[in-house]
Amino acid sequence: MPVFLNASDADFEATFAALLGAKREDSPDVDDVVAGIIADVRARGDAAVIDLTARFDRLQLTPETLRFSEAEIDAYVAQVPEAERAALELAAVRIRAYHERQMPEDAYWTDESGAQLGWRWTPVSAAGLYVPGGLASYPSSVLMNAIPAKVAGVGRLAIVVPTPDGVANPLVLLAARIAGVDEVYRIGGAQAVAALAYGTESIAPVDKITGPGNAFVAAAKRRVFGKVGIDMIAGPSEILVIADKDANPDWIALDLLSQAEHDESAQSILITDSADLAKAVSAAVDKHLETLERRAIAGASWRDYGAVIMVNDLDQAAALSNRVAPEHLELCVADPDGLAEKITHAGAIFLGGWTPEAIGDYVGGPNHVLPTARSARFSSGLSVMDFVKRTTLAKMTPAALRAIGPAAETLAISESLEAHGLSVRARLDHLNE
Amino acid sequence: MPVFLNASDADFEATFAALLGAKREDSPDVDDVVAGIIADVRARGDAAVIDLTARFDRLQLTPETLRFSEAEIDAYVAQVPEAERAALELAAVRIRAYHERQMPEDAYWTDESGAQLGWRWTPVSAAGLYVPGGLASYPSSVLMNAIPAKVAGVGRLAIVVPTPDGVANPLVLLAARIAGVDEVYRIGGAQAVAALAYGTESIAPVDKITGPGNAFVAAAKRRVFGKVGIDMIAGPSEILVIADKDANPDWIALDLLSQAEHDESAQSILITDSADLAKAVSAAVDKHLETLERRAIAGASWRDYGAVIMVNDLDQAAALSNRVAPEHLELCVADPDGLAEKITHAGAIFLGGWTPEAIGDYVGGPNHVLPTARSARFSSGLSVMDFVKRTTLAKMTPAALRAIGPAAETLAISESLEAHGLSVRARLDHLNE
Repeated sequence: MPVFLNASDADFEATFAALLGAKREDSPDVDDVVAGIIADVRARGDAAVIDLTARFDRLQLTPETLRFSEAEIDAYVAQVPEAERAALELAAVRIRAYHERQMPEDAYWTDESGAQLGWRWTPVSAAGLYVPGGLASYPSSVLMNAIPAKVAGVGRLAIVVPTPDGVANPLVLLAARIAGVDEVYRIGGAQAVAALAYGTESIAPVDKITGPGNAFVAAAKRRVFGKVGIDMIAGPSEILVIADKDANPDWIALDLLSQAEHDESAQSILITDSADLAKAVSAAVDKHLETLERRAIAGASWRDYGAVIMVNDLDQAAALSNRVAPEHLELCVADPDGLAEKITHAGAIFLGGWTPEAIGDYVGGPNHVLPTARSARFSSGLSVMDFVKRTTLAKMTPAALRAIGPAAETLAISESLEAHGLSVRARLDHLNE
Repeated sequence: MPVFLNASDADFEATFAALLGAKREDSPDVDDVVAGIIADVRARGDAAVIDLTARFDRLQLTPETLRFSEAEIDAYVAQVPEAERAALELAAVRIRAYHERQMPEDAYWTDESGAQLGWRWTPVSAAGLYVPGGLASYPSSVLMNAIPAKVAGVGRLAIVVPTPDGVANPLVLLAARIAGVDEVYRIGGAQAVAALAYGTESIAPVDKITGPGNAFVAAAKRRVFGKVGIDMIAGPSEILVIADKDANPDWIALDLLSQAEHDESAQSILITDSADLAKAVSAAVDKHLETLERRAIAGASWRDYGAVIMVNDLDQAAALSNRVAPEHLELCVADPDGLAEKITHAGAIFLGGWTPEAIGDYVGGPNHVLPTARSARFSSGLSVMDFVKRTTLAKMTPAALRAIGPAAETLAISESLEAHGLSVRARLDHLNE
């Protein structure tokens, strides 16, 4: 049974704090193993990647077969049924259109001292995308990672996707092709992250690595951070639904379950001001859990981490939601836009009853790679911004240097950085000659 | 002696690659020590922070004296000479004006399906800023970290700054006050990072931690990443100057030394198409190294990591610079704006001979916290963007759901996520009733 809470109860604060603080994931300490794998790939390159792939994926590769050939991709892609191809293409068009609006603008202006100031954005030259193999190999995630990179102007985009026992997912390869991915390697785990970060004889290094993965992949990304850029380290994900009395309980039950079915450590929370709705949703969840294909996973998630919270009003619901900082937030209320104004921390907001979270997973347009485990307090979902970087610009004139140079000299001297001060002074003296 | 290279030499590529790959910093493995400190602070809170401060900073605090009182800050601030106060205030005004232009804009639009899509930016609620103590305690860095946070709208900004033997830097406290910092704690090291990330009885936790520090601080930031957001992990920094025959060799020598005087592992590189200039700069560096206060540090940096590279033309200079991806890039050439167009990776560009890098350290306006150790390939300097996060918005109408819902259902089924598909199907069925 999930937790049922009432914000008016005396022990609410303690129970809610426990819900927020609940550790929802075993983090196996794989760091030593991963350190060894990274060192091996740095030392032995292709040979290490091939050995590790034989061991973990039961697949014997050669330097020539590390990468899918275009002909191989053609053959896999040809297996995809037309309906799925069309759906992926619609998704790609919508995701691209949304992300094209995210391209930041350059700026360059002259201030009152006469100095020219500004910045310019440039794309990362090469990026690598980790795609999990097996059951969690989601073609939608390929689109969500690859399209922002290509919109940003990344010149070279490589995918690594493990193919245990040699089994590849045709939809993943089709998504890679639709998104314009340049290279696809059939490797995974920490060895794939190491190969992307440091390069091997057959795999050129990249500058940035994104994409989800298991504990080994997460540990490897954390370790190569600094050598290359990484996106967030994904944790267990969550959905929070705020609903009023007129919401459809069956729809909300399915929305809660669509998060719960991902992972036993996922969390689904309903906050409502209607006791009737709370009961109806809870009953609908139980009903669907009798038949859902992934009922074992979804049931465990709902039982262990699910919560239904009664509040006095929707302002209180927004305040509690802000403390959760959910990855996904659905506002199934009469005035979702008004309520959204009160949300300060959330990865993505789905407004109104016609917007199931699953729309956002596939075809809405916004990215589905979102900050998990309360990290929406300080981070954002994946975007074009993850694949560009800013260079600041400053250009002084003699007049500008006269105006602000002496202050720089004063501060340099106060920080005991003599050469800093002299570099300004030498120019000021020249102007005064 | 620094390295002298000529891009036309047969062995240039190998030597340049060695220069790029040179490991410029000992990274002492302090990770186990830091893990112990973080665990101690999590377990014992204030008591652990107080014990560790007594041990490392030789300073006995109590829960009441962990934080500087306003009266204490008043007293320190009153010691600052007027010239330094005025210089800090000018710097603050200019930094604020520059960063105010960085505030990103919200967006919300209706697409051709009738769906409303967009995003909203919100500030991080609470941020912590690490300020090193002792010699490397730079008031300018307080401004550079704190002002973007306040411009972003961060509600609560706390500084931690160690005060070994109880000695505080009045300029740091003045900079904190000018920048509008809310709380200043006299603690440092991994214990300060842990206190900010997890909170203690006397220190409320924050959501994001920025600011430079030593190996212990860097290891602690890496460990708390995920629990809170962090900025980059700073590495050894560098300046690269591209200069033509008409550049002033003495100014360039001082600019190279203003990087070298920071740190023995700093790197200063000159690239030029003029053999005469190369010789003149080299001689000027040697001359200044006879008298500079920090000549031991600057001399070691120049000797071990300095480089002078001759090229055939400035296009080649830009291409080499892009491989270095320097933190600071000066373009002391006749057409700096034209050359800047060819730069794809750099933290900050200083255009023309009137713009010494030191201007950017203090009063230019752009941030001086910049990507080091080649990370300008994938990351940007500190900005307002580090203190805001994006929430994406999606709102379907019945018509929009009819248009794009079936594709979402198809993809959900292809990924074996039944509840995802059902959450869309239930709504579509309702529309078809």
